[in-house]
Amino acid sequence: MKGTFISFEGPDGAGKSTVLKEILEKVGQEIKPQYIVTREPGGSKIAEKIRKIILDPENKQMADRTEALLYAASRSQLVEEVIKPALEAGKLVLSDRFIDSSLAYQGVGRSLGIDNVYEINKFATDGIMPDLTLFFDLDPEIGLQRIKLERPDHEDRLEQEKINFHYKVYNGYQEINQKYANRIAVINANQELDQVVEDAIAVIKTRLPELFDER
Amino acid sequence: MKGTFISFEGPDGAGKSTVLKEILEKVGQEIKPQYIVTREPGGSKIAEKIRKIILDPENKQMADRTEALLYAASRSQLVEEVIKPALEAGKLVLSDRFIDSSLAYQGVGRSLGIDNVYEINKFATDGIMPDLTLFFDLDPEIGLQRIKLERPDHEDRLEQEKINFHYKVYNGYQEINQKYANRIAVINANQELDQVVEDAIAVIKTRLPELFDER
Repeated sequence: MKGTFISFEGPDGAGKSTVLKEILEKVGQEIKPQYIVTREPGGSKIAEKIRKIILDPENKQMADRTEALLYAASRSQLVEEVIKPALEAGKLVLSDRFIDSSLAYQGVGRSLGIDNVYEINKFATDGIMPDLTLFFDLDPEIGLQRIKLERPDHEDRLEQEKINFHYKVYNGYQEINQKYANRIAVINANQELDQVVEDAIAVIKTRLPELFDER
Repeated sequence: MKGTFISFEGPDGAGKSTVLKEILEKVGQEIKPQYIVTREPGGSKIAEKIRKIILDPENKQMADRTEALLYAASRSQLVEEVIKPALEAGKLVLSDRFIDSSLAYQGVGRSLGIDNVYEINKFATDGIMPDLTLFFDLDPEIGLQRIKLERPDHEDRLEQEKINFHYKVYNGYQEINQKYANRIAVINANQELDQVVEDAIAVIKTRLPELFDER
């Protein structure tokens, strides 16, 4: 694959989507390759239909393994329809969540095991992994408070989980960050937004200097 | 698990559902344990929502891996909500399609590999396998003609596949039948319905005599 793939990870409310947008506003012009932004679960017509089933608070009976398989199904559709063609065309792909979310939420949060969940996702992604992952590090309790302030009337099925679940997911992320230390960069998300954005840009420029114009 | 699990497999139009119904009409009273009948994909509220996405002819862009993962997701929900509790309660579970359909349709028909598809399904079913599988053997072309006669106006996304695909699936079933010869019994479905039903009952009585009242 000729392109470059960066994923954004972290607990709910860590500010991944906002930071992603801000990065592009600040340095989008300097990025050499064409880029696309996508999000998970979802990001294509079929994947959005799967997303709806996953997040619908009505689906309380969903089995943990079903949840893991639906995330993998949505991911494989996004890979096939969007990510793989973009990488083959040499583009930069920026994704709001990718495989590490499944390892943390389903592998650890749902206790299915990081390795088991990795296996089904290796199948789902046909082996495609991010070149760089930015992990936005924030106490999950602070993240959930932020979400409640922004969207007081609406919580999806995963956000509705008790705080214990979110701490479990957070610990899962710590384990994954160590396991894939070469790929994942940890960014302190408990700072002013401008500082978080600046830190994220610095990491991308250091790790992937080839993305930017020479000066 | 104390219960017994029988799955019904074969190409579209082989008559699985009809034979299943006829078996229960003929010998349902003689079966000792309580029994439940279920179908795949679907069989529970969440699984039916997944079924809708899988079979909707509108979803032409569906990636092969997504299709395999959605079948596995629907299966895991059915296992968790319906099959596992029934087996734990000592019941007989009769399922119209199960794991072998995925091995044949996605593993061979979609060329994803029997072993790869088996792995994600081992995760999906938490290791639960049928005790006995009846394979209804019919030339896929005859099966598709039967379906067209019964439902001239409607074909789902899988049925719409070209005849080559259905032959590929059929060859996949042959491979699976050999691989799991101890579990799978082949029944000639190119006979009068009464004879097919009689053959199926004979196989069940021979392989699982404990299901029936002693005389």
